[in-house]
Amino acid sequence: MADSPNCDLKSLSPLQLFEKVTEQGEKVRALKAGKAPKDEIDAAVRMLLSLKLSYKTTTGQDYQAGLPPKDLVLINNGTAKEEDEDLVDPWNVQTSNAKGVDYDKLIVRFGSSKIDTDLINRIERAIGQKPHHFLRRGIFFSHRDMDQVLDAYENKKPFYLYTGRGPSSQAMHVGHLIPFLFTKWLQEVFDVPLVIQLTDDEKYLWKDMTIEKAYEYARENAKDIIACGFDVNKTFIFSDLDYLGTSAGFYKNIVKVQKHVTFNQVKGIFGFTDSDCIGKISFPAIQAAPSFSSSFPQIFNGKDNIQCLIPCAIDQDPYFRMTRDVAPRIGQPKPALLHSVFFPALQGAQTKMSASDPNSSIFLTDTPKQIKTKINKHAFSGGRDTIEEHRKYGGNCEVDVSFMYLTFFLEDDDRLEQLKQAYTSGELLTGELKKVLIETMQPLVAAHQERRKQVTDEIVKQFMTPRKLAFEF
Amino acid sequence: MADSPNCDLKSLSPLQLFEKVTEQGEKVRALKAGKAPKDEIDAAVRMLLSLKLSYKTTTGQDYQAGLPPKDLVLINNGTAKEEDEDLVDPWNVQTSNAKGVDYDKLIVRFGSSKIDTDLINRIERAIGQKPHHFLRRGIFFSHRDMDQVLDAYENKKPFYLYTGRGPSSQAMHVGHLIPFLFTKWLQEVFDVPLVIQLTDDEKYLWKDMTIEKAYEYARENAKDIIACGFDVNKTFIFSDLDYLGTSAGFYKNIVKVQKHVTFNQVKGIFGFTDSDCIGKISFPAIQAAPSFSSSFPQIFNGKDNIQCLIPCAIDQDPYFRMTRDVAPRIGQPKPALLHSVFFPALQGAQTKMSASDPNSSIFLTDTPKQIKTKINKHAFSGGRDTIEEHRKYGGNCEVDVSFMYLTFFLEDDDRLEQLKQAYTSGELLTGELKKVLIETMQPLVAAHQERRKQVTDEIVKQFMTPRKLAFEF
Repeated sequence: MADSPNCDLKSLSPLQLFEKVTEQGEKVRALKAGKAPKDEIDAAVRMLLSLKLSYKTTTGQDYQAGLPPKDLVLINNGTAKEEDEDLVDPWNVQTSNAKGVDYDKLIVRFGSSKIDTDLINRIERAIGQKPHHFLRRGIFFSHRDMDQVLDAYENKKPFYLYTGRGPSSQAMHVGHLIPFLFTKWLQEVFDVPLVIQLTDDEKYLWKDMTIEKAYEYARENAKDIIACGFDVNKTFIFSDLDYLGTSAGFYKNIVKVQKHVTFNQVKGIFGFTDSDCIGKISFPAIQAAPSFSSSFPQIFNGKDNIQCLIPCAIDQDPYFRMTRDVAPRIGQPKPALLHSVFFPALQGAQTKMSASDPNSSIFLTDTPKQIKTKINKHAFSGGRDTIEEHRKYGGNCEVDVSFMYLTFFLEDDDRLEQLKQAYTSGELLTGELKKVLIETMQPLVAAHQERRKQVTDEIVKQFMTPRKLAFEF
Repeated sequence: MADSPNCDLKSLSPLQLFEKVTEQGEKVRALKAGKAPKDEIDAAVRMLLSLKLSYKTTTGQDYQAGLPPKDLVLINNGTAKEEDEDLVDPWNVQTSNAKGVDYDKLIVRFGSSKIDTDLINRIERAIGQKPHHFLRRGIFFSHRDMDQVLDAYENKKPFYLYTGRGPSSQAMHVGHLIPFLFTKWLQEVFDVPLVIQLTDDEKYLWKDMTIEKAYEYARENAKDIIACGFDVNKTFIFSDLDYLGTSAGFYKNIVKVQKHVTFNQVKGIFGFTDSDCIGKISFPAIQAAPSFSSSFPQIFNGKDNIQCLIPCAIDQDPYFRMTRDVAPRIGQPKPALLHSVFFPALQGAQTKMSASDPNSSIFLTDTPKQIKTKINKHAFSGGRDTIEEHRKYGGNCEVDVSFMYLTFFLEDDDRLEQLKQAYTSGELLTGELKKVLIETMQPLVAAHQERRKQVTDEIVKQFMTPRKLAFEF
């Protein structure tokens, strides 16, 4: 970071300025908390005031902690959206609200259904055990046709799980684990087969990357996925580049979907333009096809009517809205869905984590020290500027990223509630909350690394070989 | 055909009216030639005059034998083309000229090269025998980079042949054999491997047809192709629906092409619109990929730099112009091409034969009687209206479909030249020329049927199994 705040501030976007102010605010707080020499604190405060002034000059708004500038919210092609509407599609998640995307509004916009207490209770009755904390805490918050899946389950009719990942880099971050951790739980409590798609072809099409690299990332990512503890007898992981060339059924379903979706439709759903390559334009069919059991003749014995349930982050919903629209027209059941919220970036809940920005994420390869540094340095705080103010007014859990991460990874409900009370009341300081998060994440990541070491190439090969799973269809 | 020419003539298109006038003209000639009763001839002549009047009312033009109405020449999306420009793309071939498409103009428009005497002589030297009559007679008339293929051949560098077919119906017509007969000859004289693509996925995407039907047609068509006499040890025939699901290399090449072609490009090349399905939009990559040897790792031992030579009708050139544009950008050699003229419809050289119109074609399943009837009834004649006029002025070989067919199927150069002289001088009547054609086509089709009967499902399976061929790479 430049010493003088004025040197190149004019070239910064409102969001970058916002981040600089926030960062500097945290620096001031840290200096004060650490009882730094007065002149050092004074210099930092002067820079903070100067940054706040630049922010106001650029945006016309006063800096408010946790409220990024309004003009951040732009959609893909650069045209402005309604200022209070969040941007959510498979490639972008942005909101102007530090609490994150407004998920209730998203449910209305996407036309999905809220996962309410009734549904959670019904799941509990069906499986005979307490539902996963992702369900209890609203991390999986929206669904499509989950009632039908439960109807089928209660009538002993089979279904299967489908989830996936775009292998854009070798290292995955902890946010990438959310759908897999939840899917693993679903697989265990319902005892159903699972297919996991690695869209290496998508990454090749979208990124500046060779086909070989995309495939290599797919295999590396498979190791991290396997390390979540999936049962090899019940799970098939596939790379598109690989499996398309080995499955009689998969390509047929892709072509069927491709016949029933026009360019106008994908333009409307995904925002493609005439300048996009034809690979991108036809790709949605490749993510759609695993929703149909006939894409996996080796697992489902050629049966084409097995219900599919897809746990995924809500940004993937556009693919499956399209799939559900096509399904009845090609004589297939519509896949059901369970949608999760986004895992926030360390810098705040306005965007999801990104594997391409190392500082936005805790990677599964990070050392305990890196985890500590990243959380201390980058985790956006909902605490007050000074200890005195914090004690007096308390912190804001709704925008505090450390607290958000704990709702994902701290399984103990009582402990989480205690932390919330203490932080909100001002009893618990930001540094103390961060310490709890560090102590939660360090062993979790270390244990993952330990399990990943056990995943040999031979094991990856087993998971990725098309074969019969331990179910009869 | 309706007895009264006036009953529903208003609902007919100019082209349909043109065909009715032509048909009636031939009927009058036949009645006169057959010395029919005067009142029968008079009735036929009255109907002819009435039809000509309808034609003039509808088109604003006088009927001229061999010159169909100008407004026939429309391109795909309904906008008028320049009136003297032929329409040639993979789905339409239309021209206003009864001699057929102006191929010299097409060479200029497409930017290909004419197969001239020098090239034919060079081929003769390279293979040490007389070139195929398709080359000598200008049926294969245009090429791209054939010199390079010959350079490579003379330097003992390997190349391979790639051709294909869209299996739109079970029965193929004699026109469909042209590329295969020529390809078989090329394979024999150059002794090279051959891959034949059956684009059943394309037919499923374009037609109102199930995927199962398209695949069934592919297998049926494979039998007719095999009956041309290809060597199973040197030939691999594949259905896209099948092979895409069995080849590691094919899909990778498809995705590579798809990454390097935009919607804007396929819109320009193929006339796709926003209302077209995404399957059509991305299909050109599937026809492109077999131009690269890495699509066939089992044949080429994984080598990705073997030169490809594609014999095909010129309407397929847009696919390969696109392929040649992409090739260097994905590190592959550009395929070379040999282009044939179109095989004319029985009704005239304005359009190519179509498998969907039974009367436009002689099918490979036709009986000797059907062949005789079709030629006598539908083959457009360049003869004169009466025997007297014909004897006096002679026939016109340039628009006579029977003569055109003989240039394709009558191998004896001297006999063909004799027929041309006799017909042009008026010595040979239309009926006599048709008789020569009937006697040429009947044994040819019968022999094909005989060979096709020998093609068992087991033989089809052998040709369609991905495997090593009798070459070392």
